[in-house]
Amino acid sequence: MGTSAEKRREAFIGIDLGGTNIKIGLFDSKLELICKTSVRTEADMGPEVVIDKMAQTVKELLADGDLSMQDVVAVGIGTPGPAKYSEGILISTTNMPKFKDVPICQMLNERLGAPVVFDNDANVACWGEHAVGAGKGVKDMVFFTLGTGIGGGIVSNGELLHGCDENAAELGHMIIYPDGRPCNCGQKGCVEAYASADSTARRATEGLEAGAESSLQEVLDEKGKITSKDVYEHLAAGDKLAKEITDGTAKALAITCINMLHNTEPKRIVFAGGMIAAGDVLLNRIKDFFDEHIWALKKETVEICFATLGEDAGIIGAAALARHTEQRGKSK
Amino acid sequence: MGTSAEKRREAFIGIDLGGTNIKIGLFDSKLELICKTSVRTEADMGPEVVIDKMAQTVKELLADGDLSMQDVVAVGIGTPGPAKYSEGILISTTNMPKFKDVPICQMLNERLGAPVVFDNDANVACWGEHAVGAGKGVKDMVFFTLGTGIGGGIVSNGELLHGCDENAAELGHMIIYPDGRPCNCGQKGCVEAYASADSTARRATEGLEAGAESSLQEVLDEKGKITSKDVYEHLAAGDKLAKEITDGTAKALAITCINMLHNTEPKRIVFAGGMIAAGDVLLNRIKDFFDEHIWALKKETVEICFATLGEDAGIIGAAALARHTEQRGKSK
Repeated sequence: MGTSAEKRREAFIGIDLGGTNIKIGLFDSKLELICKTSVRTEADMGPEVVIDKMAQTVKELLADGDLSMQDVVAVGIGTPGPAKYSEGILISTTNMPKFKDVPICQMLNERLGAPVVFDNDANVACWGEHAVGAGKGVKDMVFFTLGTGIGGGIVSNGELLHGCDENAAELGHMIIYPDGRPCNCGQKGCVEAYASADSTARRATEGLEAGAESSLQEVLDEKGKITSKDVYEHLAAGDKLAKEITDGTAKALAITCINMLHNTEPKRIVFAGGMIAAGDVLLNRIKDFFDEHIWALKKETVEICFATLGEDAGIIGAAALARHTEQRGKSK
Repeated sequence: MGTSAEKRREAFIGIDLGGTNIKIGLFDSKLELICKTSVRTEADMGPEVVIDKMAQTVKELLADGDLSMQDVVAVGIGTPGPAKYSEGILISTTNMPKFKDVPICQMLNERLGAPVVFDNDANVACWGEHAVGAGKGVKDMVFFTLGTGIGGGIVSNGELLHGCDENAAELGHMIIYPDGRPCNCGQKGCVEAYASADSTARRATEGLEAGAESSLQEVLDEKGKITSKDVYEHLAAGDKLAKEITDGTAKALAITCINMLHNTEPKRIVFAGGMIAAGDVLLNRIKDFFDEHIWALKKETVEICFATLGEDAGIIGAAALARHTEQRGKSK
């Protein structure tokens, strides 16, 4: 048994820094949530103020959990980039225009005293699923978030894969239909241009505009737009256009799964993001198309599944990354 | 300065085990070739005889180099799989039907005494280029062999990426045209079905059969078939069909480069195999299509180039892998 002082240092902080809210979670050494909170980012106040507030909120959360900074082994933080993650520098981020080349790890470390690790939001969520969610127990995993766009993360041999300039796993921008639908990134035929929540909704709208008969027409007429949620609701009700659109999404994702299998060879492929609310109707179609299009050279055993951590993936993943980085450091 | 005995142990053996020939190279600690040889595999004699012969040839080669097994730090061997590489077991290999579940590392180690490391032929060639060839100096690289099929290798953060069942980097079977040309693997639209040497030649033949006017028709009439070499020769002479076919090959490879960039984010992408004899006319078209199809979000600096090790890539890579595995073992 260690001393009392040693025993106390076993908490981890996970921070999910978004343009609107800062979510902060306090976790024990098994990554069980002790307590969490959320505050407005107020990004227009600039990085000094935001990071002051972040540090203050961490301290208040610790007090709520009857702990202090002395109990915190490390802090993890996730944000959208681009960033020099390994150097702890946030280069810029769309929703926080005043954040330019911010040494976010150093600034937070100066205020809190604990080591701070930093990665992009998709990698952080990927790592959370790997540590305690749908990717638990495998060393090789691929992760997709299906939201406005499609984000990605790769775990290879038990570590996040970062690439030469820390921009690896931009998996939404793998081209699956050369010269296909335009993507916001400037490429054509990216999987994101077919299978994100936004693209799914847009393809449905285009289907109606092209004259397809569908119960979705009423939604468009009433609300002026269609969401991916509408598509899945009308699919459940047997709408033919909704089925076509869902099949297009599922096929694009299945082809991408096949390409990842032949690439980093994951044992598990995990989908997250708002669109997984569609449930088995989407997951099963992805598996159908995967089985239909995969090679015959050998039977593949990759598991395709949905994420399990939900809204807390960002704070869990950030805390998990902090814990992993500390453990790896000690094993060196 | 170490003792004399320590100083002598600085040689590495690289073995390229193919269905027809066994190539063996003896290298110094800087991976400079001391001497090499090639003997017939005679695979139908079965694994015991073949591995006896392999060990005997290694000893003869060492004698030629005025060295002995005492000078050999480690032995590397590359073959086509499938195999359990980390366990040293060759499961099977198309051109050597008598090789079934052969514990090749153990058998060779028993005969030679030195540690033996083992990987598939594409990974070995990739590692050779990474160590001393076109991929030297970068930690993240992607490698393609353009031959009968398309093989691949990925170096991520300075290590070969193997995947959950050691079948990662089957990059020829990434699907770039869903429902496109049938591939030998059973999938449709693989990059291999467009851009291997065989597929390039086949697409040219199909072009003629479809009525294209081309100087390649004479080749087909005379020889009964077209090779990729013919395509590039007639491209140089200004043939229009040859240009179309080359563009199809280059575009397929460029899309694949883009997909790898968004995936493991290599600093360098290296093409090897017989087809790179085409030279700059092919390389420049790949770069053209890459520039045309890559995203606009940021400028990419990935270098696309041809391999430099040529025919000896297999033995150099095997020796390099042996050296790397030994060095990594020591650093643990």
